[in-house]
Parts: sequence; structure tokens; C-alpha cells
Amino acid sequence: MFYHDKRLQYKVRVEKPNPQFARLLQQAIGGIEGEIRVCLQYLFQAWGNRGPVKYRDMLLETGTEEISHIEMLSTAVALNLEGASGNMVEKIVQENPVVGEIMGGMDPRHYLSTGLAAMATDSNGVPFNGSWIVASGNTVADMYSNVAAESTGRALATRLWKSTDDPGMKDMLSFLIARDTMHQNQWLAVIEELGGMNAHPVPNSFPQSEENQQFNYSFVSTNIENEALTYEGSRFTHGPSIDGKGEFKVVKAQPLGDEPKLGAPAPEGFAQTEQMTNNDGILGTLSDMVSK
Amino acid sequence: MFYHDKRLQYKVRVEKPNPQFARLLQQAIGGIEGEIRVCLQYLFQAWGNRGPVKYRDMLLETGTEEISHIEMLSTAVALNLEGASGNMVEKIVQENPVVGEIMGGMDPRHYLSTGLAAMATDSNGVPFNGSWIVASGNTVADMYSNVAAESTGRALATRLWKSTDDPGMKDMLSFLIARDTMHQNQWLAVIEELGGMNAHPVPNSFPQSEENQQFNYSFVSTNIENEALTYEGSRFTHGPSIDGKGEFKVVKAQPLGDEPKLGAPAPEGFAQTEQMTNNDGILGTLSDMVSK
Amino acid sequence: MFYHDKRLQYKVRVEKPNPQFARLLQQAIGGIEGEIRVCLQYLFQAWGNRGPVKYRDMLLETGTEEISHIEMLSTAVALNLEGASGNMVEKIVQENPVVGEIMGGMDPRHYLSTGLAAMATDSNGVPFNGSWIVASGNTVADMYSNVAAESTGRALATRLWKSTDDPGMKDMLSFLIARDTMHQNQWLAVIEELGGMNAHPVPNSFPQSEENQQFNYSFVSTNIENEALTYEGSRFTHGPSIDGKGEFKVVKAQPLGDEPKLGAPAPEGFAQTEQMTNNDGILGTLSDMVSK
Amino acid sequence: MFYHDKRLQYKVRVEKPNPQFARLLQQAIGGIEGEIRVCLQYLFQAWGNRGPVKYRDMLLETGTEEISHIEMLSTAVALNLEGASGNMVEKIVQENPVVGEIMGGMDPRHYLSTGLAAMATDSNGVPFNGSWIVASGNTVADMYSNVAAESTGRALATRLWKSTDDPGMKDMLSFLIARDTMHQNQWLAVIEELGGMNAHPVPNSFPQSEENQQFNYSFVSTNIENEALTYEGSRFTHGPSIDGKGEFKVVKAQPLGDEPKLGAPAPEGFAQTEQMTNNDGILGTLSDMVSK
Amino acid sequence: MFYHDKRLQYKVRVEKPNPQFARLLQQAIGGIEGEIRVCLQYLFQAWGNRGPVKYRDMLLETGTEEISHIEMLSTAVALNLEGASGNMVEKIVQENPVVGEIMGGMDPRHYLSTGLAAMATDSNGVPFNGSWIVASGNTVADMYSNVAAESTGRALATRLWKSTDDPGMKDMLSFLIARDTMHQNQWLAVIEELGGMNAHPVPNSFPQSEENQQFNYSFVSTNIENEALTYEGSRFTHGPSIDGKGEFKVVKAQPLGDEPKLGAPAPEGFAQTEQMTNNDGILGTLSDMVSK
Amino acid sequence: MFYHDKRLQYKVRVEKPNPQFARLLQQAIGGIEGEIRVCLQYLFQAWGNRGPVKYRDMLLETGTEEISHIEMLSTAVALNLEGASGNMVEKIVQENPVVGEIMGGMDPRHYLSTGLAAMATDSNGVPFNGSWIVASGNTVADMYSNVAAESTGRALATRLWKSTDDPGMKDMLSFLIARDTMHQNQWLAVIEELGGMNAHPVPNSFPQSEENQQFNYSFVSTNIENEALTYEGSRFTHGPSIDGKGEFKVVKAQPLGDEPKLGAPAPEGFAQTEQMTNNDGILGTLSDMVSK
Repeated sequence: MFYHDKRLQYKVRVEKPNPQFARLLQQAIGGIEGEIRVCLQYLFQAWGNRGPVKYRDMLLETGTEEISHIEMLSTAVALNLEGASGNMVEKIVQENPVVGEIMGGMDPRHYLSTGLAAMATDSNGVPFNGSWIVASGNTVADMYSNVAAESTGRALATRLWKSTDDPGMKDMLSFLIARDTMHQNQWLAVIEELGGMNAHPVPNSFPQSEENQQFNYSFVSTNIENEALTYEGSRFTHGPSIDGKGEFKVVKAQPLGDEPKLGAPAPEGFAQTEQMTNNDGILGTLSDMVSK
Repeated sequence: MFYHDKRLQYKVRVEKPNPQFARLLQQAIGGIEGEIRVCLQYLFQAWGNRGPVKYRDMLLETGTEEISHIEMLSTAVALNLEGASGNMVEKIVQENPVVGEIMGGMDPRHYLSTGLAAMATDSNGVPFNGSWIVASGNTVADMYSNVAAESTGRALATRLWKSTDDPGMKDMLSFLIARDTMHQNQWLAVIEELGGMNAHPVPNSFPQSEENQQFNYSFVSTNIENEALTYEGSRFTHGPSIDGKGEFKVVKAQPLGDEPKLGAPAPEGFAQTEQMTNNDGILGTLSDMVSK
Repeated sequence: MFYHDKRLQYKVRVEKPNPQFARLLQQAIGGIEGEIRVCLQYLFQAWGNRGPVKYRDMLLETGTEEISHIEMLSTAVALNLEGASGNMVEKIVQENPVVGEIMGGMDPRHYLSTGLAAMATDSNGVPFNGSWIVASGNTVADMYSNVAAESTGRALATRLWKSTDDPGMKDMLSFLIARDTMHQNQWLAVIEELGGMNAHPVPNSFPQSEENQQFNYSFVSTNIENEALTYEGSRFTHGPSIDGKGEFKVVKAQPLGDEPKLGAPAPEGFAQTEQMTNNDGILGTLSDMVSK
Repeated sequence: MFYHDKRLQYKVRVEKPNPQFARLLQQAIGGIEGEIRVCLQYLFQAWGNRGPVKYRDMLLETGTEEISHIEMLSTAVALNLEGASGNMVEKIVQENPVVGEIMGGMDPRHYLSTGLAAMATDSNGVPFNGSWIVASGNTVADMYSNVAAESTGRALATRLWKSTDDPGMKDMLSFLIARDTMHQNQWLAVIEELGGMNAHPVPNSFPQSEENQQFNYSFVSTNIENEALTYEGSRFTHGPSIDGKGEFKVVKAQPLGDEPKLGAPAPEGFAQTEQMTNNDGILGTLSDMVSK
Repeated sequence: MFYHDKRLQYKVRVEKPNPQFARLLQQAIGGIEGEIRVCLQYLFQAWGNRGPVKYRDMLLETGTEEISHIEMLSTAVALNLEGASGNMVEKIVQENPVVGEIMGGMDPRHYLSTGLAAMATDSNGVPFNGSWIVASGNTVADMYSNVAAESTGRALATRLWKSTDDPGMKDMLSFLIARDTMHQNQWLAVIEELGGMNAHPVPNSFPQSEENQQFNYSFVSTNIENEALTYEGSRFTHGPSIDGKGEFKVVKAQPLGDEPKLGAPAPEGFAQTEQMTNNDGILGTLSDMVSK
Repeated sequence: MFYHDKRLQYKVRVEKPNPQFARLLQQAIGGIEGEIRVCLQYLFQAWGNRGPVKYRDMLLETGTEEISHIEMLSTAVALNLEGASGNMVEKIVQENPVVGEIMGGMDPRHYLSTGLAAMATDSNGVPFNGSWIVASGNTVADMYSNVAAESTGRALATRLWKSTDDPGMKDMLSFLIARDTMHQNQWLAVIEELGGMNAHPVPNSFPQSEENQQFNYSFVSTNIENEALTYEGSRFTHGPSIDGKGEFKVVKAQPLGDEPKLGAPAPEGFAQTEQMTNNDGILGTLSDMVSK
């Protein structure tokens, strides 16, 4: 279960409120690289975790920390909207119709829907979406999802840092950037504990003997030119595979399957009557690709 | 630009059509772990790629391959729906009301919306969503997103493999599982070329001196117990960090920020009148956290 | 900021795992009446709260409690999926193709995407959506949104209670139903503190003199019959209004506006050429409803 | 069934077209506080209504009125876009590249997708979503959802009113604000008829004896400080509950459940091999929380 | 504005309630081929209509009719859920855990969320989405969208007709199928009035001299085989174009553009440091494709 | 299967990068009228195609071409963002807080999420949605969907053409507009091959004798005025129907069904107790509209 402390995990101060920057901050709250996503992702991974208990514990702790980050960012949005509001509406009324000039860069719902506070959306107002939560039941797959989330998340945070020169906002972001550094390292450490590159191919509990042996370490070149690109000296086309279980090679893409031939439309599907016969005026009732 | 060959990349055959299995296959087409996602993800990464040209080339090739996988799976869905259809509707009509028994496990839209063919949705009928495409402009962040996608994608494919004993379907899946093995290795190889663990923290072009130095290698324990969990012997709490640029330590979570105090509601936000005064009957007009 | 305790807020036990019931429980996790929604709704209301501080405090406390409920329900989903899994897949393999019979009532993604754990979706697999979070900046509007959420949420919980006779699940639900009782009362208490029915019309800080005085207490009957339905003795058509600021009356719907006449299509909008002239062969360039 | 009159329910006139204001109006059409939502919400509540017939009648009448409001607002959007269009595109062509200055505040799809007319989206272009329609089968739960919708809807309308000084737009909005006043009162009147505060806890047909008796009137404080916040004098922590069926009290949050221990991963879930054994090297096959 | 009559446009009766068929009917309510979509589509087209007034009138009339169809179908869903409910839940309680068998084919939200009534979703519970509303400002483009909607809508209705042998449901569907027949003809009639095939290419107000003259009537063959498929005798590859303004021909796909070369990553985008130099160790700052 | 050529289908050049125009171009990539939609739509239609093989072939070829169009547009977005970026961020830093002025018209995610590249979203940042893919199993229904997509798509392209005077962009758009011209003609040619107007009503394999004979060629007027609008001389109200199988007439809308009377709420639905009895104090248990 969870508890709350009224104070923030880290200080949030705004020198000069900026409604446009409030909009940009929304990406870090409700965007796919944002904090609601990692918060719920780590918690759902924990709640479904099976295996060594320490990973459940760790995921719960860091998932809990991320709620504190949503809190910090939502506070930052409210503060950036705050001082500006009186001024903003005053201008709207006095200098109408200048709504556009004033509101062009801010999210209109920050005024219309919330009365100047944060929302569970990204910087375009697109709502947070639960489909972004990855919790696959395979710890290594989850860790890679987490490293990916913290890498795109840290890229976002650095771009936000670059977009402001408000000292309070820069300070808050330097904290969040530092946390992303730690979290990248943390998830990578778990991968190392679980075998590092040897953990591949993920999942490693599936018997590799069951996978097609011709194509599991082949780079398939779909390039139209007659000769496949050689990528000379590239790590991904030559030498032992990264997981140490195969040898990279390059093969030219070519069709190993047939041209699909579906059967005639089922009458109860109500296709057009003209679809019922094929080019030769004859239509079988089952595809050639289905055994009879 | 792109070209098409009428034959499939790999053979797709169905011994015994199974509409319920057709529904499960949809997860691999339009689900977040599915092929439309990786196809568009690799292509968008390529189209926005800046840096060494070979990565653009490679992403284009593999993105192109993934279209062929969507094609194979969509064909497999159509074939699994095919033979069953006549039988299915016949039963509906003769033994009404048994719609439920027959349709319970299949996706009703496979009949109602498509006349027995694949859709751009997952196994619950939830449509593919473009928000899943990650193309961050940072190659390492993108590669981790790709490894994550191929890891959850391979887990999905192995579960599909386990859910059928149709030889044709098992063969097709053993090919797709093999491709996921290769693609995991491929993206990892790029990470190795770009420095491996030294590529962290991603993005590495942001000066680490600008991030908070107290918290960039600290595991923050939010556990309520007085003593933080020690995770003795765990790689993520002790010793040098994975990126080699810091030393892991464990700190107990504690609030470094203040309790947020927002200012009074702006009159033009039309809060309730009772919100205009605080507990003490006085409301400032600006938060204490905003400089005045 | 937030902390976590490894123990659950209330005990969660399952007598007999039931994957179909796991699917039903998802509605209470990621559905619009579910716990992720109220959790984020109360927290966002708190983070944007302006006015008497105690409401921010209270919202933070209850928002925090709701995270614990998501945790309980996610644990319940994992447990309901657990014991059944070996059996389920064994059956799939032995008695193929019975995927449908076994999987018909369960969410296929509970196996395919999570390896038998909870997701951030509703009982149809539709992802949680951030648009459901209401935090309007007006405390009374928010409280009504909260009462509504707890009323539909409690209805959902009672229906789940009715759908199982597992003693462990019934016990857990009787706890959650009790919490919904309290939370309904809690939000109603705030409305009472803020004036009860006198808080209306919400927002009460907008001068009612600015609203149209003919239609602010009139029930408009759109019924086609010549005489409007009288609703004799109904509270909403006769007597003083609930907010005590007007008198209910019934009026028959009738058009007070004109038929809209838009201007000609702007050439740069590339309508069809035939749209450029109206019935009379003449098209003005501006609507009559726009001042010239 | 339904009929249409070519005239509008209330007059819609625009003094000075303003494309940016057209964008703001979209929130009242396709936003979660908007008219499509209440229109469909009231109609679906009516179509599924069971119980006293007058509520079905009333919901149908008001649901029908709301279609007229969508019509008025859509007309207002078209008019606000209208006069501006020629000017706008002329500027684009003459003073290129000033697309941004001109289009910054307007919705680009108002030109690109509709040729200067309204859409079924909110002010950020996010499409209307059917998940917002609440029709629970419980009339009181529905009425609270309706009061909430009309409260946030009226807050939105007052903010729109404040954002314009076009006399035509202000007049139209003063009509819509008045209708929201009536509708709030209307739904509250139904709640009063159905027992007012005594209707709680909703649903009142569930036997309260079945809910947990320790927690149905307790405010649970999740505050980390040793002493729970007392909220002295607050209505929601002391005295009789609002529904008159209990006594409020305050309890400190504490875990009543165990730490969850899920069983080992099912082999067919293809977790990593390393997950198959726990910290002690032993993994049961079923959770302790599942009866055996 | 709009009015309502309490009676239905056409009779709706159910011989034997069938919750599974209720789920199928949802596709016709909230699916992309469903009635909410055409209702709002025709109304939004009307409200934004510019040009001959009769099309606005006609769209308003038919859009209004479609509300009556949503009403009929929602009533049909409620009736199909009705008689079954007592039985259903009784079974759940007596024969637990048979939730799956009973609920497998029905939408669980029909019980959990609505208490046995219709929702604004499709047959998989995916919510109606406002993005489906097409109202382009070009009447011919809109009419084609309408013909397409009525064609897929009629296909859906015939498949629903085939899925039931309840005489009441078949009768209702035979009415709705007839209306789709009329509406297809109706929109086609408008296209005929506006020039039929001569209305193409839509929009016809754009000067065709501005479009590329080499490719406006060429079928581009992307087939990989050296010789393009000839489609001998096909209407779309030989002879005068359908719009009468060109001559069909077949050309083999070939690249007319260059390989894209984007410039170096902007430093403020925080790519990886390794991306800053290209294969040759040199990166320009601007793409070759951008003028300097 | 598919292949790739590194060169573009048509040349893409930008004279003067314009981040705001990059945002507008997104509508043509990920909007409902955009290229991802038609690409996947044609491919899914092909993969599910049953009937004469040439239509599968043709759909595959044109679906493949559309991938090349996504590639061109994504390249154009990257180029429009490119040159501007250094300048843009420089300005942000030097002239803070002018984020709004600079970013107002551009998509903030073009910087924050992608580091200056294209996304799978529309011009408002709303993600591409798989529900837009229409592949109905009926070839004529699909062709109308395709004509509609190419008509709204061409309208979009002409509006984009009008929004820029960059010669490179105008040239690229003139190519895409030409392709839309061809594709409209192409799909119309298929309709002609399949019978033209005689293909209606779609689907033509459903026996028209089963549809209601009173309403299949009647224009239903829902206009409130006593006399239905006559639409004198209109093609859609008089004379033979377009499909040649009926005669148009006009009928005044009137209710042929009863007022719906649903039964009492099922107890297990937990409605309010007050709903259990109707106006007369008596509630049946089944609707009158359900046979008993």
C-alpha cells in the first residue's frame, strides 16, 4: 500500500511563469515518454512479477518514486500557468481579437478545462493511453522496455532543459535528468544480473531448436539492387552474434512462400456477386493453402 | 521507394482452420508487440535518421522486411477464418441461439466487418495506434526501443506457437521467432558499435555536469520501513555504475522540496466563490513558489 | 512525495482461480469506473487545487489510497490467472483446437501480452484513457465528478460481487464497496461545506445576471406532440428551483434563431465548382449571420 | 424518433469572425465537457432506462435539446472561420512563410480537413470518444454524472464567454450558460425525488450489511506523518455521515493484507529461465494466496 | 433544432432475448460502419455545408433519421439483454465458476457497466471515435464518403440479418437494410446532379494544369518482376480515363528522386555524440535537399 | 513480400525550411485522409481479397506505391524542420521566454519527441488510428471507401499546395495530387467493371426481396413542417432510382413502432430501489416488446 508526504521530492520553483512552457512540460507528464507511463509500467511489472522477489521490491520502490515526479511536474505546470493568467485574460478582453497571439502557443484546455492546472495529456493535448504500459511477464523484456523508456524520457528532459532559461525549471529538470541516469543504470544492472547479452534471445526459456535455423542469425537485405548492401565491417552482419549463439551472415531477400490464393467468398459474407467467380470463371471453396 | 513480389517471404499453410486462433494472431498484427508497430517504427526511424548513413540503410531494409511479416500474418488470419466460415454460419442458422458458443472465442468483427479477413487491430479488436511508434532522433534510445519491441514480440510469438498444434502455423511461427532472434541481435550490435554500456546515460551528448550530482547514481528507496531495503549483493545498489561513470549507492527517500502552495484562483477561471479565500480567510494572488 | 509498504491495504485471497473473473476485474482497474481513473483524478485535482488547503490535503490522501486499490485488484487478477494457467495451456495442447472453448471468456492478452497478469485496460481490453480525468479548477464541479465516479464505481463493484462466489474475492470486494460508500459521503460532505444546493449553479462566481433570464429555470420540452408533457407533480418542472434562485416552469421548444445561411465556399478551400453558386445562381461571399 | 426544424434553437451571430475563437469553441462541441457527450449520454440513459417512465421521457427531451446545441455551436464555428478565410489564405500566399503567425492559434484541420467548418473534436483536435458516455443502469448514479457534466460544462461556457467580446458570441453563450443552470437543477431535482442524500450509498439496492463494516464510514489517512491530519471541524471526518447511515471517523492507513507472493511463472508463459527459481532457489507452483 | 416522438421509427420486437446477439448489434451502433457515425457525419456535413441549399436540407433530414436508427438499435440491445439477465446471473451463482461459459460470448460491460443496456461502442467494446466523421467541405468527396459508409453499413446489416433467426430482429434489420439501399441511391443521385464521373478529379475546382502531367493517368506498377503486369483488358489500365480527361497507361515504378540525405543532427536535439559525424567522418549542417 | 530502393519515388526539395509547414504536412502522413491510411487500407484489402485475382494484384501494387508516398512526406517533414532548428533553439535561449512565439505554430513534439523528424500523427498530433482501415470483404464497398479516401486526400493535398509557395514543396505536391487523380479513376474503373450503378445496392448478393419494400426507395423527410420539403426537380426524390431497381418517392417521417417499454431492472443489476416500481407502482419483469 501507499503513503503520501505533503512535501515534494525535490524543490519546484518558477522565476517567471510561462504558459507556453507549461504546455511543453505536459509531454513529460502524459506523453509516451512521460512519468505516468513509467510510473504505471513499473508498478504493473511489480504487481505481476514472478521470480526472484527483489525485482518486485525494486520495481515497487521506483514505481513509487515516479508518482512523486508526476507530482513535481504537475506542480510546475500549475506554477507556470499561474502568474500569467490574470494578464492573459485581461489582454484577451482589452485587445480582442488577439486570442490567437496570446493563446497560440499555450494549450487552450489549460484555461478552458482546468482553470490553469496540469492534465493527464501530452503536449498536444492527446490523452495518456494505457496501451503504453508494457509488463510482459518476462523480466528481461520488461527491463529493455524500461531502459528504452528512460532513454527517450531523458532525451525529452534534456530538450525541455534546453527550452527554458528559468533557473527554477532548469534546477528541477537537472534533478529529473539525474534520476533518468540512475534508472537507466538500474535496469541495465538487472539485465547484467540476468546474464547480460547471454539473456538473448529473449525469452531464453523457449527452446531455440524450435526456431527456424536458416534465418535466426541472417541479416535479410531487402534492397532492390542486385547485390545486397555489404555493410562492410559492420558488427551486425559479420562475426559471432551478440548473444554468442550464432554467426551473423547476410542473405538477399527472396520469396520462400507461394502467392496466396484464398478461397471463394463465403456466401454469408455478402461479397458482391461478381466476386463469386474468379478470372477463369471458376472459384474453389477453399484456399489451396488450407489442407482438405 | 518500394516494390512488391506476389509471393510470400515464407510459406503460410493451415492444416485446420481455427477462427479462435485467427483472433489470437491479430495480436501479432495490430497489437503493441505486433508487426505494424515495428514496421512503421523502423521506417520512421530511418526517414528521420541523422548520422552515419548505414543505420538509415539498415533500418529501411528491416522495416521493409516487416511489411512482409504483416502480409504473412494477415494471410494466416484469412486462412484460419476461411474453411470455418460456412460451417459457422450454418450452425448459427440451424441451432439458434448458439451465436455465443460459436462466436464466443472469435472476434465478431472478423465476420461482421471484414467478411473473414484480417484487421489492423489487436486480439481484443483495439485498433493499432500510431502513438506506439518511437523514433526519438537519438539512435541508441531508438535501438533500445527496438530491442524491447523484438523481445516482447518474440515472447508473443512463442506464446502463439504454444497455443496451436497446427503444423503449418507452427512452422510459420518458428520462422517469425527466428527473425526476432536476429533482430534482437541486430539492434544490440548497433548499441555495441556505438559504445555499448558507455553510450549511457542516453543521450550522451548532454553534459553530465548539468545533471544533479547527488542523485544520478543513487537508488532511492521509497519503502516505508525505517531502514531502506539493502538489496545486499545486488548489482544495482553497490559498486560502479553500469555506464562506468559513477558509483551506486542507496538513499532513503525524503522530501527535499516544500509543500506546494498555489496562489488564489484567477477570477476568470470561475472557481467557486468559496475557493477565493483560504483557511485563514486570506489568499495571495501568486504562489510562494513563483518569484515576485 | 510517496512511499510504499510491501503489504496490501486489505487481504486478497482466491479460493479457486478463475481466468474469466480475472477479465471482469479488469473493468475495476482500467475501466472508466475503475481505480486508475479515480486515483489520477483525485491526485490531479489535488495538484491543481487552489482555495482552502484542507481539500488539497484530503484529495492527496484519498488519491494515495486509490493506488493501493489498483494494487489489490492487480494482485487479484494475477491470482485468478495463476492456478489456471498450467491447466489451460495443457488443455490447449492436448485437445487442440479447443482454444476457443478455453479462451472464449478470458482476455487473450492475459496470456499473450502479460504471461498471466493484470493490464491497464478495461474488461474488453480497451486501454485506460487519460481523457477521463476531470480536474476542472472548480471544487464543486470536481466533487460532483467524484461522487459520480464513486457511484458508478460502487455499482460496478456490487456487480462484480454478484458475479463470484469465491469467498476471498467476495471479502475483498466487500472492502472496496465499503470504501466507495465512504468516498461518496466524503465528497458530498465537501459539497455541503461549500453550500450544498446553494453552490449552484456551478460555477457560482459567474454573475448570474449575465445568463439569459428566460431560459435559466425552464424545462424545454422537445416532445413533438402539440402539448408539452406536463410531468404533473414532478419536482423538476414546478415550484422553486433546487438552488433556490429561480422558479421552474415548462416551455415548449421553439426556434428562436434563424435558418443558418453560410457564405460561399472560400476558393482556397477547393470545394466542387458546382458549390460556388447557390440555388438562385448567386452566392454571397459572407454569411448573413456575420456582420459586414 | 426524431424531427428537425431548419431554424436554430437560439440565434447565432458573429460580429467579427475569429478563427482562433472557432478553435476554442470546439471544446464545447467535441470535448469531454461538450455537447456531443451530454447529448449521447442523456439519450443512451433514456434508451436503457428502467423504472418510472417519466425519467425516460425527460432524458429524451433534454437529450434532444442538446442536439440543437451542437448545431448552434457548429454553426458558430463555421461563421467564425468564414469571413477570415479569404484574408487568411491571401496572407499565406503573399507573405509566405508566415503560415505560423496566421495559423498558430487556429486548428489547422479547420482549413485542411473541413474547408472551414466544425469537427467532432475538442479544442486540441482530439476526437470525441464514446467512452465518455455514462449510462449505468442506476438512475441516481446517472444523475450525478449528469450534474457533473453540466457543472464542468457550465464552467467551460463561462470561460468561453470570458474569452470573447463579440456581442453575438456572448449572447449565444449566455443562452447556453442559462441552459446549463436549468439542467443542473433538473438532475438535482430527480435526485431529490429519489431520496436526496438518503439515496446513498449508490446503489441503495445492494444490502449494506454485505459491505465491510469497519471501513464504510472511515476517512483513511495515508499521510506519512505519525499523527493523521485531524481536519478539525471538517464535515467529512466527524459527526453523522451525509447519508445518515453511519458516523464519520478518521483512521490511520495501515496494511491489513499480506505481502503478495505470486507463484512461479507458468512454463508456457516463456519468462526468462532465471525467473523460474526464487531467492532461495525454490519456487512453488502456486501463490500462497491461492487455496490448494 | 430537433424534436422527439416517443414512438420508434419502426417496430422493434424480440422473440427470444440473446445477449450474444446484443453484442453483435453494438457494431451497428458504435462501430465505424454504424449509425452514430453516419448520423453525426450527415449532420456535420450539413452544418458546414456551403453551396446549393437543398443539400444542407437533405443532409439534415437524413442525419435526423439516423438518430432514430440509433434509438431502434439501442432498444434492440436492451431487449436482447433483458429476458436473459435473471437467468444469466442465477446461473452464475448456482453453477460457479461458469462465468466464462455464460459470459464468453456477451460483452461483459453490458452487465458490469450498464446494467443490461446499449453503449456507444462497437462489438468489441471499442468506443465510438469522432475521427470517423468525414465532412470535408467538398460535397462530392462527402457524398463518396457517404456511399462508402452506407455500403459497408449495409454489408454489416446483412451479416447481422444472417446471424439471427429471431423474426422480430430479422424484421427490424430488413427495414434498416432497405434504408441503406435508399441512402446509397440518394448520395449517388447527388453525385449525378453534380456531374457524375465528370465531377472527377475531386476537387474539380483545383486547376488540373497544376498537377503533374506525367502521372495523373498512369497506373504505376510496383511489381518486382521485370515486366509490369499488363492487366490485359482491364478498364483501369487502358482506354480513356473514367473522368474523360485523360488516357490510362501503365508505367513501371522507378525512382525519380534522390536518396535523401538529411543534415547533421541539431546539437539541441541531443542525439548521441556518435551521430554527429557520418561515415566519412564529416557531417554537413544542412541536407543537400535544402537550398542554401 | 516487399523490397526497397534507397531513392525516392519523386524528388523532394525544400527551398526554405518551415517548421509550421512541417506540422501541416503531418495531416497527409498520419491523418484520416493521409497516406498511412490508404497504404494499409489497400494492403489489407488485398490480403483479404477473394474473387478475381487481378484486384488483389492491383491493390498490392498501389498499396506498395503508397508506402513510397509516406516516405516522401516524412522526408519533407524532416527537411522543413531541419534548417530551422538551430535558429529556433538559438532564439529560445537568447530571447526567452519566447517559446510561444516560435513554437506556437509548430508541433512541439517535432522537437521534444523526435529531434526534428516526422511522426505517425496528424497535424494536431493525434496518432494514426487503425480503425480507419476499411476492408469489408465486399469489393465494391471497398472501392467506394477508396474513392472517398482519394477524394478527401486530394482535397487535403490541394489545400497544402495552396498553403506554401516553396517551389520544391509545390512540385512534390503536384505529383501527389496527380497520383490522387489516377487513383480516383482507378477505383472508379473497378466499379465500372463490376457493373457501375448496377452494382447497387451494395452488397448485391443479398436478396433484395428480403429488404422492406416500402422503404427501400423512399426519401424520408424528417422536417417538422407539415408539408415535407419537395425538392422539386431533384434527382434523389423523383424518377427511377440510380441503381435502376426502384422508383424514388418522398414520404413524411412518421412513427411505425411503439413507445419502447423495457421491463423492470434485474435485481442483480443493482439499480436504485426506487427504480424497481414504475409510475403505477407496478413493474412487470419483461418488456412488452419481448415475447413471453
